[in-house]
Amino acid sequence: MKKLGVLSVISGFSGVGKGTIVKKLVAEEDYALSISATSRAPREGEVHGREYFFLTRDEFHSMIESDGLIEWAEYVNNFYGTPREYVEERLAEGKDVILEIEPQGALKIKEKYPEAVLIFIVPPNAKELENRLIGRGTEEADTIKKRLKRAAEETEYIDNYEYIVVNDNLDDAVRDIHHIIQAASHKKDRAGGFIEALTDDLKKSF
Amino acid sequence: MKKLGVLSVISGFSGVGKGTIVKKLVAEEDYALSISATSRAPREGEVHGREYFFLTRDEFHSMIESDGLIEWAEYVNNFYGTPREYVEERLAEGKDVILEIEPQGALKIKEKYPEAVLIFIVPPNAKELENRLIGRGTEEADTIKKRLKRAAEETEYIDNYEYIVVNDNLDDAVRDIHHIIQAASHKKDRAGGFIEALTDDLKKSF
Repeated sequence: MKKLGVLSVISGFSGVGKGTIVKKLVAEEDYALSISATSRAPREGEVHGREYFFLTRDEFHSMIESDGLIEWAEYVNNFYGTPREYVEERLAEGKDVILEIEPQGALKIKEKYPEAVLIFIVPPNAKELENRLIGRGTEEADTIKKRLKRAAEETEYIDNYEYIVVNDNLDDAVRDIHHIIQAASHKKDRAGGFIEALTDDLKKSF
Repeated sequence: MKKLGVLSVISGFSGVGKGTIVKKLVAEEDYALSISATSRAPREGEVHGREYFFLTRDEFHSMIESDGLIEWAEYVNNFYGTPREYVEERLAEGKDVILEIEPQGALKIKEKYPEAVLIFIVPPNAKELENRLIGRGTEEADTIKKRLKRAAEETEYIDNYEYIVVNDNLDDAVRDIHHIIQAASHKKDRAGGFIEALTDDLKKSF
């Protein structure tokens, strides 16, 4: 059964640990991680093609105009988007592709790729999310409140997701997401003409 | 997140190897395998409570009348059914339950338990199924033809199943089914009030 790869979208609140989960998943299993493009300037330590493809605003607009992005959005005066070529080439090769993007982008992906698997990562509870944000030690109390407020708002988007993974334990969360993506590759709707061909062959066999 | 167990139904053509797959899956992973009840007589080597619960026709009818079966059907003058108590008790404990039943029974399960996961096991191709039936060495050519004909007919039921697993390699098929059942436990629709409770808590946190 020759098949396209599975396209998965992973989202979650700021501080929930999705970056760590995705990094571990991609290190341990055979997945292709899509790198987003952005018009914002690189922060210290960020590398072009690793964290993001850093583009000028003009370059970003050219990509939009040439239909080179499968979804894009503007946040706080910066553009973010998912380059089409990498995603579609990997899927065509049968490789499973992971996008780690915001809920608005996830919704656009689902519209264009209805078979995409949408996974939302949640903390075991609100207190734990707050503790993780505090534990980072990089953010002021005010920024932490803003992130918690945004998390509360983002819960409205969870209804667009098919799967929920609780990040209580890193290894468990990585394994859960791996199972979800692997299961998706066995969905009947992805079997193409396999069942029809098998039926025809069975009819000739007796 | 306290949850009910996942109810999975595994079906497949005679000779596809589903019995072997289910036996290995249950030996390796923490699943509860439902044992069917039947009014047919035990064959040599069959043990009451292992292959089937062997009942008299009267006992079987009493179970039907007391709503003790979640599905039942008559084949070639014998009754077969799935006892309710075992399945519902395990699910309530949070244990994932596997039923290995015929496509007609699978359809009845899906009607009563819409969240049930229906998995159909197929051979890599028709010739391979024929080879496996011949390889058993226990059946006459005529019986083999009948089984192939029935397989061709059963393909019509595949549309009721959500997942297809190709049994090309035993270990792969066991792993695939394990992933499918594990993924199902993360479906958003099974999260109960978890998201609502998390949202409420998040709203109180800033």
